[in-house]
Amino acid sequence: MSSSWGERIRISIFGGSHTQGIGVNIDGLPAGEEIDWQRVLDQMTRRAPGQDPTATARREADQPKVLCGLLDGMTTGAPLCAVIENTNQRSKDYGQLRVLPRPGHADYTAHVKYRGYNDVRGGGHFSGRLTAPLVFAGAVARQLLARRGIAVGSHVMAIGGVKDEPFDSVNLSSKLLNRLNQLYFPVINLQAQEAMRGEVERARMAQDSVGGIVECGIIGLPVGVGNPMFDGVENLIASIVFGIPAVKGIEFGAGFSVAELLGSENNDEMYICEDGRVRGVSNNAGGILGGITNGMPLVFRTAFKPTPSIAKEQDTVDLRTMTNARLSITGRHDPCIVPRAAAAVEAAACLAALELLAQSGML
Amino acid sequence: MSSSWGERIRISIFGGSHTQGIGVNIDGLPAGEEIDWQRVLDQMTRRAPGQDPTATARREADQPKVLCGLLDGMTTGAPLCAVIENTNQRSKDYGQLRVLPRPGHADYTAHVKYRGYNDVRGGGHFSGRLTAPLVFAGAVARQLLARRGIAVGSHVMAIGGVKDEPFDSVNLSSKLLNRLNQLYFPVINLQAQEAMRGEVERARMAQDSVGGIVECGIIGLPVGVGNPMFDGVENLIASIVFGIPAVKGIEFGAGFSVAELLGSENNDEMYICEDGRVRGVSNNAGGILGGITNGMPLVFRTAFKPTPSIAKEQDTVDLRTMTNARLSITGRHDPCIVPRAAAAVEAAACLAALELLAQSGML
Amino acid sequence: MSSSWGERIRISIFGGSHTQGIGVNIDGLPAGEEIDWQRVLDQMTRRAPGQDPTATARREADQPKVLCGLLDGMTTGAPLCAVIENTNQRSKDYGQLRVLPRPGHADYTAHVKYRGYNDVRGGGHFSGRLTAPLVFAGAVARQLLARRGIAVGSHVMAIGGVKDEPFDSVNLSSKLLNRLNQLYFPVINLQAQEAMRGEVERARMAQDSVGGIVECGIIGLPVGVGNPMFDGVENLIASIVFGIPAVKGIEFGAGFSVAELLGSENNDEMYICEDGRVRGVSNNAGGILGGITNGMPLVFRTAFKPTPSIAKEQDTVDLRTMTNARLSITGRHDPCIVPRAAAAVEAAACLAALELLAQSGML
Amino acid sequence: MSSSWGERIRISIFGGSHTQGIGVNIDGLPAGEEIDWQRVLDQMTRRAPGQDPTATARREADQPKVLCGLLDGMTTGAPLCAVIENTNQRSKDYGQLRVLPRPGHADYTAHVKYRGYNDVRGGGHFSGRLTAPLVFAGAVARQLLARRGIAVGSHVMAIGGVKDEPFDSVNLSSKLLNRLNQLYFPVINLQAQEAMRGEVERARMAQDSVGGIVECGIIGLPVGVGNPMFDGVENLIASIVFGIPAVKGIEFGAGFSVAELLGSENNDEMYICEDGRVRGVSNNAGGILGGITNGMPLVFRTAFKPTPSIAKEQDTVDLRTMTNARLSITGRHDPCIVPRAAAAVEAAACLAALELLAQSGML
Repeated sequence: MSSSWGERIRISIFGGSHTQGIGVNIDGLPAGEEIDWQRVLDQMTRRAPGQDPTATARREADQPKVLCGLLDGMTTGAPLCAVIENTNQRSKDYGQLRVLPRPGHADYTAHVKYRGYNDVRGGGHFSGRLTAPLVFAGAVARQLLARRGIAVGSHVMAIGGVKDEPFDSVNLSSKLLNRLNQLYFPVINLQAQEAMRGEVERARMAQDSVGGIVECGIIGLPVGVGNPMFDGVENLIASIVFGIPAVKGIEFGAGFSVAELLGSENNDEMYICEDGRVRGVSNNAGGILGGITNGMPLVFRTAFKPTPSIAKEQDTVDLRTMTNARLSITGRHDPCIVPRAAAAVEAAACLAALELLAQSGML
Repeated sequence: MSSSWGERIRISIFGGSHTQGIGVNIDGLPAGEEIDWQRVLDQMTRRAPGQDPTATARREADQPKVLCGLLDGMTTGAPLCAVIENTNQRSKDYGQLRVLPRPGHADYTAHVKYRGYNDVRGGGHFSGRLTAPLVFAGAVARQLLARRGIAVGSHVMAIGGVKDEPFDSVNLSSKLLNRLNQLYFPVINLQAQEAMRGEVERARMAQDSVGGIVECGIIGLPVGVGNPMFDGVENLIASIVFGIPAVKGIEFGAGFSVAELLGSENNDEMYICEDGRVRGVSNNAGGILGGITNGMPLVFRTAFKPTPSIAKEQDTVDLRTMTNARLSITGRHDPCIVPRAAAAVEAAACLAALELLAQSGML
Repeated sequence: MSSSWGERIRISIFGGSHTQGIGVNIDGLPAGEEIDWQRVLDQMTRRAPGQDPTATARREADQPKVLCGLLDGMTTGAPLCAVIENTNQRSKDYGQLRVLPRPGHADYTAHVKYRGYNDVRGGGHFSGRLTAPLVFAGAVARQLLARRGIAVGSHVMAIGGVKDEPFDSVNLSSKLLNRLNQLYFPVINLQAQEAMRGEVERARMAQDSVGGIVECGIIGLPVGVGNPMFDGVENLIASIVFGIPAVKGIEFGAGFSVAELLGSENNDEMYICEDGRVRGVSNNAGGILGGITNGMPLVFRTAFKPTPSIAKEQDTVDLRTMTNARLSITGRHDPCIVPRAAAAVEAAACLAALELLAQSGML
Repeated sequence: MSSSWGERIRISIFGGSHTQGIGVNIDGLPAGEEIDWQRVLDQMTRRAPGQDPTATARREADQPKVLCGLLDGMTTGAPLCAVIENTNQRSKDYGQLRVLPRPGHADYTAHVKYRGYNDVRGGGHFSGRLTAPLVFAGAVARQLLARRGIAVGSHVMAIGGVKDEPFDSVNLSSKLLNRLNQLYFPVINLQAQEAMRGEVERARMAQDSVGGIVECGIIGLPVGVGNPMFDGVENLIASIVFGIPAVKGIEFGAGFSVAELLGSENNDEMYICEDGRVRGVSNNAGGILGGITNGMPLVFRTAFKPTPSIAKEQDTVDLRTMTNARLSITGRHDPCIVPRAAAAVEAAACLAALELLAQSGML
């Protein structure tokens, strides 16, 4: 299988880059939740290509059509299924892809797994386009979370060697998150964005691409959701975030830097806040201890590899003849998907947060 | 829930640091697999504390007793349950833990989640001791994998600021992995080990602790196991690895460093090997493309935070009075769990690899 | 949740009687399976209303549209999603249903569960119409099974007091099953069908409805699929068959009649068949021992309650005023759904059989 | 797999008739629930053999030992694992079972599935003895239910041709259920019990065995738990009840008799009760409409086949030589397991009810 995620809030994503339609079925939503359609479309737009020089020129309508699960703008409690028609496929020859797998893509692994029957057009079910239904589902989840005081937002923390200011994980505010989660290219420091655009432009000029890091925050989760061992918050978030194409790593709180810390540096000492709540003076735990939320901002970072589709000629193999070959990829491709990926990371975070609430009987 | 993992090969882990016993039930093992008991015990020993100055002086017998599932040393196809009795608990007062949660531990989050009814003795179900049944299950899985040509091994890649030589992820050999997976403190470069021991010793002297990184490799997985999106190899491995206490991050292949790479640098160009197989000239993908194995060595790294139990006095809160408080943790504690954690990471990797085979109908 | 079933072959069904569309996403199908579209439509037609005097006059196009998962008539290995548009809804007032729940329907239970936000139009997600996507998914599964020598068929075993001849569960043939699974009103004894039609007609004339029993058989499953305890064949089949609206019971082999049998009568004695296979002289086990197939025909029966929508005036309650009330249901309703239900039972059986093969690594 | 059940309350059962121990791990119990140990043992005793002439003379201590999950008699929220040592195994030769599979048993199917490596001693993992840990888990669940006003009880409704009075499913009281669930041989009409004992005695005298039916009731479930389609109450209960060895059928409410009812007879008309609640004048639905509870007593019946182990000589096959053979089963065997099975059915019902509450966020 491939496209199913979640236990209490289950999403099933379907479709491929060039199939008639793609979409998502969301099962387990509580009834009576109002869904603001414009806010759903706003999130779809953040993910959509074609709006910014960092992205591909390909334009997608990305108008989701709800088949069921909403009545008069309210959830009915029944599965909510939305479909996006694929209207802008260039039908030109994809036969080459079946023969010459693109380095860094799933062309070769899918060819072996599906014995040559996989849909190679545009990457098929492995296409980044599949994040569109994910963002749709996340946009629905986000509205349920907001109603319960939970905010999710992210920023592009790095592109190439250029870094944005990191989150202040102790004082992260829903105000900041709610500002970032409206932006197409969310950053804290606008100068960093300029430099990042420069990185992307350099990559594009070189017929190349560049990777980056998205940092995501969740504010407002109650203390005590999540579980020890395999049903922890980290496990759950990782299990959905690695569903976004191109993700190669995830870290929570201080993440990989904990390797260089002493216990006395890494431990988040606690105190009683003015409002009576328990808080940490630092947040190296990223809001999670023992797999369970501790009430501090939940913070994680996700690494995105550079788009593998580049115009530069590359070495590959010919799967018909099983000989070495050269490949030049043509067509429109993002030199950098990281800004658009922020919307997908947030969507995954929204769905994980909703699942955590549902598992704790808080929906 | 907390302790259940896997779909076709399901493990259920139970117990706490000071309960009468801890153990694991493994459901889904194929029948007729011979289990070499000594090799199981060897893995248990790698994880067990008390054998090395880097670890706690506490000695645990860690003798697993198999209740069922093995007959004449062969798996029967029925659930295999093993129990380890907890024999070496110091029964002294743990009442303080219920009142003064330790920074960096799950004491506070568990207190809220379980409304004060959780077993706080030694960390209860959140104890690192729970990796003993995980290592047991992994040691069983490892033998099934070996029979199918799959080797799993790891090394301590970093402790504090000291780094071991990284894996050569293109030429990683089962010979190296099978050497490392016999060692208590596995490293590639023995000089690095010496320096790491120095780091640990410095932390111990300072009544402190230190974190690190484990790098793990899997050789021999067939091309084509794993799935796109949420059932990918990365999702699966992350879902079990984050079940090991103290893990704060995971990355595959080039991992977080992909953020600084160009597509032309990150893409693994392919060629036809002398033996006719498709291989990459590099392995930034870590053996996984689109969630599916590509036949190259599978490589991932896991970040471990420093042991939170340190003797240094720390700020915490008093959960009875809800006022600020100071805490000094006494007792025996590892200044660094990373060498022992290697056995747990490998166990998780073995179980994930076995699950992948089972899902692909290859068991 | 509600609409998700299966582990290796997962279906997610969505939609309601009067939503814009209904459909199913099938995840986990192997790649490279040819799907004969006409045979899919044939099964859809068997379930569709309006073709027989026993059924409602309401006509549905029931033309499934495949959004993805098929390419040139072959499965791609990616999720296969099909949507059926609801074209023939009479949009008249369903407001009464929100106030006066129909006896025997889910109107009241859904009202409480979804706090009044459920879609009551035509029964919403509880409508028998939801068996259309189930039959679609089953029709796809059936073709994979046929390719592997497995046949599934059923007959209307009883309507009201009239009974068809039961299956000869020892000598059940795929030839018989493949004849039955083409029929709209499948019976073994055509005279029984005539009498059943009489029962249905009498119920219709009396503005009433009538229940029945479907007996289903599966031929060709290998020996040894299924598992002990909770993953047995009976558990699996029951878990999907009870997903068909109006099912109130299921029994395997001799079923409830075992209560009156002695062990010596019920035990199926075994012998070596001419072709060397082990067979039973009887098949009270219905092809399943210890949750595992034994190579004999798999036989089960399912009880369907009479359609609850009847024109006769009935007592109900007014959910606004919480007082007693009277209800007369108007509109077109089947006096008997059992003939059409046969297609749904077979679809469930096909999906269960495919899941069993997948779990056993036989797909 | 085999022994795992449940999503929010997950049980994992392990062991075989003659393994060192059998047991169950229960994951997902809320913390802070007091467990009355004597009441647990009382339920274990109901299931235990050797107390009544209807059962085998074999005596089992069946003393569960809790390894973890309870502290000072309260649940901790961590997995609760209990082990029962197998102390009374007669170690005599079971080699015959590996060669001559017993009709009506899983010997043959397990032999094929596990390629001869299964534990045949006493039926291995297929033994009715596995209901001991099920009853243990159910006894724990029952106490949580009682605290929430939910009662579960059952009676032996039929043995052979002798029938007990059925439940009055409209007026079923927790008082009756709580009386029945204390009895070893629960019936409503004591004269029926006498006649049933006669049936069992006749079977025993004839070296035979006899089957029966258990009827189970659940009182006090809130309206609105359960879900449409595949996550309905019937699906859930069936998925665990078919995990009890020897079950061949299950029906809810009017069950198979609905086939002969008209809609006007089967529909449960509704009215407003004096206490303001909605009730049915009948309860053919068995408390479930559309997979969701309606507040009426939940009633279901389960058919048990006669114990397949009978002393009478039977035809079987020799799996070594693949020739026909004769088999005489010696040893102690129940002529009728139905009275003891009542405890197992209730245990399954208790676990299903607890899972339903957990899924609805009501634990």
